[in-house]
Amino acid sequence: MLREEIVRTVSVRGGHLSSNLGAVELTVAMHRVFAFPKDEIVFDVGHQCYTHKLLSGRAEAFDTLRRRGGLSGFPKRKESAYDVYETGHAGTSISAALGLAKARDLKGEDRAVIAFIGDGSFNNGLIYEALNSLNILKTPILIVLNDNGMSISPTVGGTHAVLEELRAGFDAEDVKLFERYGLTYMGIYNGNSLEELLPAFEEAKQKLKGGSVLLHVVTRKGQGHPFCESAPVETHGVSPSSAGKEYSAALGEELCALAKEDGRIVAVTAAMTDSLGLRPFFAQYPERAFDVGICEEHAAVLCAAMAAGGMKPYYAIYSTFLQRAFDEVIHDVCGQNLPVTFCIDRAGITGTDGETHQGVFDLSYLSLIPQLAIAIPKDIGEMRAMLRASVNYNAPLAIRYPRAGQEGVVAPVEIGKFEVLHSTVSDIIVLAAGERAIKLAEKAREMLGGEADFTLVNARFVKPLDIQFLSERRERVVITVEDNVVRGGLGDAVNKFYLNSNKTLVNIGYPDLFIPHGEPGALAEEFGVSAEALVRAVREHHARG
Amino acid sequence: MLREEIVRTVSVRGGHLSSNLGAVELTVAMHRVFAFPKDEIVFDVGHQCYTHKLLSGRAEAFDTLRRRGGLSGFPKRKESAYDVYETGHAGTSISAALGLAKARDLKGEDRAVIAFIGDGSFNNGLIYEALNSLNILKTPILIVLNDNGMSISPTVGGTHAVLEELRAGFDAEDVKLFERYGLTYMGIYNGNSLEELLPAFEEAKQKLKGGSVLLHVVTRKGQGHPFCESAPVETHGVSPSSAGKEYSAALGEELCALAKEDGRIVAVTAAMTDSLGLRPFFAQYPERAFDVGICEEHAAVLCAAMAAGGMKPYYAIYSTFLQRAFDEVIHDVCGQNLPVTFCIDRAGITGTDGETHQGVFDLSYLSLIPQLAIAIPKDIGEMRAMLRASVNYNAPLAIRYPRAGQEGVVAPVEIGKFEVLHSTVSDIIVLAAGERAIKLAEKAREMLGGEADFTLVNARFVKPLDIQFLSERRERVVITVEDNVVRGGLGDAVNKFYLNSNKTLVNIGYPDLFIPHGEPGALAEEFGVSAEALVRAVREHHARG
Repeated sequence: MLREEIVRTVSVRGGHLSSNLGAVELTVAMHRVFAFPKDEIVFDVGHQCYTHKLLSGRAEAFDTLRRRGGLSGFPKRKESAYDVYETGHAGTSISAALGLAKARDLKGEDRAVIAFIGDGSFNNGLIYEALNSLNILKTPILIVLNDNGMSISPTVGGTHAVLEELRAGFDAEDVKLFERYGLTYMGIYNGNSLEELLPAFEEAKQKLKGGSVLLHVVTRKGQGHPFCESAPVETHGVSPSSAGKEYSAALGEELCALAKEDGRIVAVTAAMTDSLGLRPFFAQYPERAFDVGICEEHAAVLCAAMAAGGMKPYYAIYSTFLQRAFDEVIHDVCGQNLPVTFCIDRAGITGTDGETHQGVFDLSYLSLIPQLAIAIPKDIGEMRAMLRASVNYNAPLAIRYPRAGQEGVVAPVEIGKFEVLHSTVSDIIVLAAGERAIKLAEKAREMLGGEADFTLVNARFVKPLDIQFLSERRERVVITVEDNVVRGGLGDAVNKFYLNSNKTLVNIGYPDLFIPHGEPGALAEEFGVSAEALVRAVREHHARG
Repeated sequence: MLREEIVRTVSVRGGHLSSNLGAVELTVAMHRVFAFPKDEIVFDVGHQCYTHKLLSGRAEAFDTLRRRGGLSGFPKRKESAYDVYETGHAGTSISAALGLAKARDLKGEDRAVIAFIGDGSFNNGLIYEALNSLNILKTPILIVLNDNGMSISPTVGGTHAVLEELRAGFDAEDVKLFERYGLTYMGIYNGNSLEELLPAFEEAKQKLKGGSVLLHVVTRKGQGHPFCESAPVETHGVSPSSAGKEYSAALGEELCALAKEDGRIVAVTAAMTDSLGLRPFFAQYPERAFDVGICEEHAAVLCAAMAAGGMKPYYAIYSTFLQRAFDEVIHDVCGQNLPVTFCIDRAGITGTDGETHQGVFDLSYLSLIPQLAIAIPKDIGEMRAMLRASVNYNAPLAIRYPRAGQEGVVAPVEIGKFEVLHSTVSDIIVLAAGERAIKLAEKAREMLGGEADFTLVNARFVKPLDIQFLSERRERVVITVEDNVVRGGLGDAVNKFYLNSNKTLVNIGYPDLFIPHGEPGALAEEFGVSAEALVRAVREHHARG
């Protein structure tokens, strides 16, 4: 019943399918043994919380999953008292459970606190920092390790090797590894068998009185759904088909072509080989392709050091996850001015995953970093051209693009140079960065018909700005459009350039708030990045002219 | 001789004393056994590289240590071919060594690559991410673990417990922990004995042919200097005495006083108890004080979760190190709108540690985060007042201050309200954020004498901006001054507010580059945050009036 509901809803709404199917019995067992919401649970990443939602009073609303105003695909405090802590990015669950448990102790309360985590997240450095804290904080938590041998891609690395050995057979020495950190180890249990799980959770609950417990459970990703079981990578996240072509496919094609000519080129990913389009590169250049697991920071340092060693690294990553490597982008890559190229996918509004997955901060947090160039292609063809230009660009470079768009053509791109897309005699110039912004500007021109026109510029570098171009423009009104928060992005940079000029400046971008889940195009419009907003701005300032 | 040189120079120039004294023999031994710069070494954090500098052609220049234009206290690629990779923040060395080693392999070269790391850094999550990668990357490196039982504070946590057990006696099961990750373990060696070290490094060099090696060495922090040996915490970093009182002392006092009244208050640090002023709090409220080791990210999540659990966490941290927790500030604290207060020390130009330690990005990378208030006290008294106001502020708050300053008075502060410090009839208003900015503005007023005057405002909240105040001002010229890069900070926020007004706007702050080491006051002036710069701006715009 639960599985059917999940399959039915995800088929329509999109979402995380195989991970949720794998965790059905586990979640049911926890709900039987523990008294939520008095007891508390933190889901690492949070994408596997569907059964939890179905069991905590949200079954009726479940068909609103991932729709604007409907249930989130992740835990949300506002949604239910059963969601005590919000997640989205990997590795936070043990730290969060420790914090909740410590608060419990300090308040003199009594409840179980559970961190529910997959083996993919278990690679993340935060986990180790949290485990290191167990004997400092001395507050008991239950860690449920849901081991399916998969991140989105198969889990990799040394920690995975340890878990594999445990799965192959109980080994006292590996168990001691956990005990050194102050954990009682319990395992291995079949996580798809309620008969095994119920007594195991009862036992763990008792053992919690003596300190923290790690319960190691093996599940099958996609359990109970034949296609998911055979294709867990493909069914990890299921989306209603995206409009247009995927930028990621072009990334894979271009990197393969470039790597053929240039032996310095290497590609790095943090457990996202397929969704970033790198599968062909991994197939053709296995010795130059590195999936280091969900370790965004390590991946950034690895790239910096390979660049210091004379290689030319391309680090492909989602916009929101690059936030994790912010310090390493500053400290390791840009501080040393090393030629690492960041291929930033899922930039701008991404939609249905909500607040924790929108890629709307990158232009801002990257713009403040010295020595970094930031490129925003207008379409896939231009992204290809930027990748080609990057090969001989000997400094840090970020290329940021959305998931899907138009193919377009490949024409040479010079770093730091804007492109005029439509030139007209008008007092208004629109500087648009990226495909969403440019498309909406084109739509605005259509909507305006003959009423008003503007020169439209592909502002394809937020940094360096095309100073020469800007200084030569004579338009009275300058409107910036970007698929990013206004604060700190293209708009602020252009405002600064025209400071104390007599230009009228208008910035279209997202406001200073966290943007919830919904359909990407509708969200962009709702939060102010729309053709209508641009039409209004043009009308207002055209009329004044 | 080496020790004398280090002690003599650090006594005059300041720097990291006890860590360098502890590592003298280790560094000498590595220089004898390995052929630098053909072989490569990455120093974790990098503060313990003085002997390396003395042995690599920089002895004559050593008395310029940490002076503007002189040797850096950290590895710098521009300084020497012996410095292959720059560090400053903890935990990057193993990732970096792996990257250099991989580049070596891909280029078909032959050299040893060493990561030299202290046990304090070994707590950092990046280390675990890098260890997890050993069996993915399959490229041999030598990890030299310099175990002195100390971070800046004594090392804490589970990893430390493992190391302690190893120190207490060789234990096959602990060794297996490392072997699982693909490391051959060698230890324990006396790191202050050349006789023990030379054959150990020779052996490690041979073993590298078969894969990565971890060489575990125990040293005594401060070795060979009686005062350092007995006071390693106090002599970790030695500074020429700072001008003024320390903000950190006030933090400790205030938190102790507030915690007396409010049982929800907890304090968290990532291995910096003393330098952040938290020692009294740890002494008075040990059950509410948490040093989690060099784990900035974990500390942020822990704070968020304690806040979700009803506590009132204060996370004290240096500005530059908070960059490490950027994603957690967004994702865990502000995304959930939780009442965590960040007490951000060493903000602005910090000086002699150089590029990796300047706190000049925080106003920018924090300003782009929704739901976060950012306060900048004008002196220590105001920082006390902000801390008092924070107790009943039920949302994320950052208070950012420099190391030292004036005591001042404690007057109530309302979140989001500016303060007029000097009011005059003038066409010019100066909005200054923080003690350095306000002091230089006062100095500028003196320098201008009767020639020109301006209204001086304590712009003590970059976010929320005091919109009401700004909208009521009638001055024609608005000058912002901040101890931060101009990009994305106070200046950009004020520019945005006055967009399309007829104001003339001037922004004083640091340019878009990495600021090197030097004396803080002199650096601030050199890079444009000076009374002279303000005087020039006032003269220029006064004249035009």
